[in-house]
Amino acid sequence: MVIVMTPGATEGEIEAVLARLGRAGLEPRLSRGAAQVVIACAGDEIGPSGLGLEALSGVASVLPSEKPYALASRETATGPTTVPLGAHAVGAGAFAVIAGPCSVEGPEMLLETARAVRDAGASALRGGAFKPRTSPYAFRGLGEPALDMLAAVRAETGLPVVTEVLDTRHVARVAEVADVLQIGTRNMQNFALLSEVGGTGKPILLKRGMSATLEDFLLAAEYVLSRGNGAVILCERGIRTFERAMRYTLDIGAVPYLKRETHLPVIVDPSHAAGARDLVPALALAAVAAGADGLLVEVHPDPDAARSDGEQSLDLETFGGMMRDVRAVRGALARVHGGDRVQDTTSAKAASSSEYRKT
Amino acid sequence: MVIVMTPGATEGEIEAVLARLGRAGLEPRLSRGAAQVVIACAGDEIGPSGLGLEALSGVASVLPSEKPYALASRETATGPTTVPLGAHAVGAGAFAVIAGPCSVEGPEMLLETARAVRDAGASALRGGAFKPRTSPYAFRGLGEPALDMLAAVRAETGLPVVTEVLDTRHVARVAEVADVLQIGTRNMQNFALLSEVGGTGKPILLKRGMSATLEDFLLAAEYVLSRGNGAVILCERGIRTFERAMRYTLDIGAVPYLKRETHLPVIVDPSHAAGARDLVPALALAAVAAGADGLLVEVHPDPDAARSDGEQSLDLETFGGMMRDVRAVRGALARVHGGDRVQDTTSAKAASSSEYRKT
Amino acid sequence: MVIVMTPGATEGEIEAVLARLGRAGLEPRLSRGAAQVVIACAGDEIGPSGLGLEALSGVASVLPSEKPYALASRETATGPTTVPLGAHAVGAGAFAVIAGPCSVEGPEMLLETARAVRDAGASALRGGAFKPRTSPYAFRGLGEPALDMLAAVRAETGLPVVTEVLDTRHVARVAEVADVLQIGTRNMQNFALLSEVGGTGKPILLKRGMSATLEDFLLAAEYVLSRGNGAVILCERGIRTFERAMRYTLDIGAVPYLKRETHLPVIVDPSHAAGARDLVPALALAAVAAGADGLLVEVHPDPDAARSDGEQSLDLETFGGMMRDVRAVRGALARVHGGDRVQDTTSAKAASSSEYRKT
Amino acid sequence: MVIVMTPGATEGEIEAVLARLGRAGLEPRLSRGAAQVVIACAGDEIGPSGLGLEALSGVASVLPSEKPYALASRETATGPTTVPLGAHAVGAGAFAVIAGPCSVEGPEMLLETARAVRDAGASALRGGAFKPRTSPYAFRGLGEPALDMLAAVRAETGLPVVTEVLDTRHVARVAEVADVLQIGTRNMQNFALLSEVGGTGKPILLKRGMSATLEDFLLAAEYVLSRGNGAVILCERGIRTFERAMRYTLDIGAVPYLKRETHLPVIVDPSHAAGARDLVPALALAAVAAGADGLLVEVHPDPDAARSDGEQSLDLETFGGMMRDVRAVRGALARVHGGDRVQDTTSAKAASSSEYRKT
Repeated sequence: MVIVMTPGATEGEIEAVLARLGRAGLEPRLSRGAAQVVIACAGDEIGPSGLGLEALSGVASVLPSEKPYALASRETATGPTTVPLGAHAVGAGAFAVIAGPCSVEGPEMLLETARAVRDAGASALRGGAFKPRTSPYAFRGLGEPALDMLAAVRAETGLPVVTEVLDTRHVARVAEVADVLQIGTRNMQNFALLSEVGGTGKPILLKRGMSATLEDFLLAAEYVLSRGNGAVILCERGIRTFERAMRYTLDIGAVPYLKRETHLPVIVDPSHAAGARDLVPALALAAVAAGADGLLVEVHPDPDAARSDGEQSLDLETFGGMMRDVRAVRGALARVHGGDRVQDTTSAKAASSSEYRKT
Repeated sequence: MVIVMTPGATEGEIEAVLARLGRAGLEPRLSRGAAQVVIACAGDEIGPSGLGLEALSGVASVLPSEKPYALASRETATGPTTVPLGAHAVGAGAFAVIAGPCSVEGPEMLLETARAVRDAGASALRGGAFKPRTSPYAFRGLGEPALDMLAAVRAETGLPVVTEVLDTRHVARVAEVADVLQIGTRNMQNFALLSEVGGTGKPILLKRGMSATLEDFLLAAEYVLSRGNGAVILCERGIRTFERAMRYTLDIGAVPYLKRETHLPVIVDPSHAAGARDLVPALALAAVAAGADGLLVEVHPDPDAARSDGEQSLDLETFGGMMRDVRAVRGALARVHGGDRVQDTTSAKAASSSEYRKT
Repeated sequence: MVIVMTPGATEGEIEAVLARLGRAGLEPRLSRGAAQVVIACAGDEIGPSGLGLEALSGVASVLPSEKPYALASRETATGPTTVPLGAHAVGAGAFAVIAGPCSVEGPEMLLETARAVRDAGASALRGGAFKPRTSPYAFRGLGEPALDMLAAVRAETGLPVVTEVLDTRHVARVAEVADVLQIGTRNMQNFALLSEVGGTGKPILLKRGMSATLEDFLLAAEYVLSRGNGAVILCERGIRTFERAMRYTLDIGAVPYLKRETHLPVIVDPSHAAGARDLVPALALAAVAAGADGLLVEVHPDPDAARSDGEQSLDLETFGGMMRDVRAVRGALARVHGGDRVQDTTSAKAASSSEYRKT
Repeated sequence: MVIVMTPGATEGEIEAVLARLGRAGLEPRLSRGAAQVVIACAGDEIGPSGLGLEALSGVASVLPSEKPYALASRETATGPTTVPLGAHAVGAGAFAVIAGPCSVEGPEMLLETARAVRDAGASALRGGAFKPRTSPYAFRGLGEPALDMLAAVRAETGLPVVTEVLDTRHVARVAEVADVLQIGTRNMQNFALLSEVGGTGKPILLKRGMSATLEDFLLAAEYVLSRGNGAVILCERGIRTFERAMRYTLDIGAVPYLKRETHLPVIVDPSHAAGARDLVPALALAAVAAGADGLLVEVHPDPDAARSDGEQSLDLETFGGMMRDVRAVRGALARVHGGDRVQDTTSAKAASSSEYRKT
């Protein structure tokens, strides 16, 4: 069970909830967000209705849940969540492709890429200013100057910007520029960072840790959600397995599994999973066919000259071809289903917007 | 390098090839098939042309290869291989769905399932007579009587039969009935069995071992191919990873990777990977979009009452809906590409039939 | 619950047991061994005592078990099992090192190795006559002639012989020579082979499948046990993981875990796990310290010239040094514990020999 | 190749090195530490001697290396590194056990545990003030008050303190109290945090990421080393695999592998790997026998009442018994080898102390 307090709830009101839970023999845990306090209880046997919590002052809602990720769980939501992406959105039938270079290498290449991916149908621009790299001797991104380039290209192209943040101390600065803050696979369980970005109110693109179970993944999202920030996009990007012929193993089953478990949008990054550009389009189409709400794709005007991840970046033309195929598959499935496949199965519950919808 | 001898090559001709290879400092290995002898050499530095092997009596062809799976490799083939499936086929643009119950439970349920999957568009019937089960106390199939039921249902419906063989001593008997012999995931490296089925000349459906690398997988196919049997269908069915939310992790990337490496058809079993029927259609569509040549799907008239694998079997109606979606995705991709996507990329090489084509 | 019938139980007696179980709403499964019939029931709620099965004619014993591997489970045994190994034994405090070449390459190298490992303290000789190889072009062992060499070297050195069998059709022939039949990692779920070797009455060395869970492993042993053959040695040999710096990842935790779960002896193969000879002694010592009942080690007089697995084979001198360290660690632990560590913890239950002890 | 600059090297001197490398066609990368600048070059074909870098002003040393982790590599060190641990040390033959509760729960339990583990032979106290937890609703440690308790108990018992830091913003505060800063498995690739702790000059206990390859692990250490901090202790703690019978799979082979690759000390955490207290002593002994330089063990006065990780914590008495066995195994191996096993194999190179030794 999760109790969500109203934004202005007082300490006294919070204490009253904790006291009632304590008297019922439960062990409440508190998560303080910027705008909101969330109280969770592991023990659910009594059931929320027996405690009369809804009637207490300062309580916004009480969500019964048997899942450890109560806020992320589908069962506590009224329908799928839509996360805004500039003028577009992702989730609940809205499909979005976020494309761009692995790292921002300069203003010209960024602008060229942004224009090309926009014209091919992308909804947002990705580009790394701060890059996590396995080796300390590898190129780690241009840093702050790259943020300025991203802002300039957004102004020029209208594409919202998705970029990664690595350090709690950079969150405020990156959030000034980014439309969506990305948390990378290696930081999926950097809980300090999750809490910090949760507090910004910005949409978060959360990449699955390369060895995170789907439960770990949803609990990482729960860190952000419990801070009062419901705009989380989940991104499957491949997991580590014994098979090393490709860079990672894309867990395509995660797409329908997550759609069943959570109301949050689920997108796929075929680039990191494949690690080889010739395999990227097939994985992207697989993701679309499996029901993903979007894609995150590395694109570079000259992949062989890229300063990072060139081997898995698509050139502009190949990206255009991939987008054509993506539209074909989506269109075909929409025609046979008379609308979004996933939306269909949830339309009864989706009458109103999600509790955690950001718009 | 691989030297394929002509079907009637004499021992003297074989010896002459071995002698020439030995004089060149190479270590030839011999694989004797029912119809054919294949000689492989690991060392490839000299190059086949320098040895004049093509001119030797009894030599059918000399295939240069840097891959350890020389016969399975795309580089030694003139194009994608088509494997016959009764009146249909799989590979080189021909798409096939093989559907039916995990195990044959009786004549009525088998016939009912066969008719339904045929009417929904399936090309072949699957059904286990001999079942490998993790526990010795689990239902292990009806055995030989099930073979007779499969034959009867084929006569009734026209669907060719795909069924598994577990023991070298059963191969001849199962091959009397089966149109395609299936080798299960737990026997992918049962090399005695691979050699035995290779000798039957029947098409082989080879399922990937749950912890087999793609190289292991292709080398297992090579066991069959080196016996002179070129009709091998590769089947990705999920691998074992740390993620246990689903039964296995479908390695969707294996589809484009294998299509790049080998001329053999590649199909996908979404049922075993998912382990849960509600996830099967999404995985099936993903496989189609990724370029698979077919699907292997568990279907049962009453999944909840199935004696094995009920939790992952589709009922007849859901299977029908899945087939409609499969056709939609295939049709959409065919329209944008003006033909099969994979075939396009290989059409230049595919002028003639494959060296190992079975027809 | 598992019901073990007496060796001469009649079909009528068996039917009577099945009927009583059926009336109680249970679903009994039958496993027929050469000497014995075993009946297992998944449902255990009623409890064996309530059914009066012990009083039925032909019932040898009724073993309550909540584990799917009832016969392998520690809870159904009166103590740890000892498996005979020629004049030696393994299990229940008896420690054994089985050493020798990966494959038998000829009589001289085999005799030289056997003498050296015997003098260094090994209890048995390993050597492959039939070798499972990932590639069909690799050396697959000398076959039957190697069996004769193994028999000759046993006569000369007194060392019992452990050798692998790959094909159900070879079991009888290999069992004529072998003191212990080895089932390799790739055949751990070759259920036809497990049943066949179970019927020989010979001790079985069962290697863990490279992607087998410990439950899968114990269920594979259950296949042999349910055939009436209780002399199974379990061998951990490394599992497949994302880490490929070594050939496999030795699952050292499997040793104490299996010792807790089963009465069967547990040994470790450090050679295949390491895949590199310089790492073998450290893994061997780790296994001993973790409580293993023995080791299976590849040794070759000239590892660099070995026809298979040379990179992970110890030379004779290094093997001798390793054995000295093994004795030191075992001696030290025996001194502080006043006997075998594992035996200590089970001595209360181990008053009599195990139900399935082979002597 | 790695060029280590002298502590006071000027920007001009650094520029001169970069210029010479650039003229040779190499791509130098710079890592700036608190006390030191390190320059690395991927391309190593020319060889350092040909460039005359040693003669340049401001160059402390030039280390040829073919490994991506040049500073961590054994080949660039003169011998094994010793890391100080209060009055004790770890590495180069010095063995250390770091023990204590998962999280600091209060002053009394901490003091009781510290006294007990010290008396049983532990060299340092572990205890979490800030705890990374998979769920946002789980107990995340007492925070700063726990740091004060750790300092008080150190004053009382003399045991140095090892505690984890999660956030770059906490590093300075935690470093005031901790003798060793711990980086947890989920932060192994939190590169911002690695750089920050590298700058403190404090010894770092770096836990292997649960899906980190050994190369990833050494590159994470390289982040710290390249900041001029050579006092890194590597800790194997189990990796994620398909086997979930235990919490993680202890990669025991990592111990000898890392000892071969790096000069840094390698310790093992058997508690997190096992996830069950009855398996911990066997894993600890395995680690010692495999050559580990120390252990990190969770100990609690009343494990069943622990607020975190109780199921895998040893009680005080079991810890004492384990320590007795650890001493027995170490003593036995020392006797047969006449000193530390690993030290023996490196004594020729270990004439002087390591370049990166912290004392």
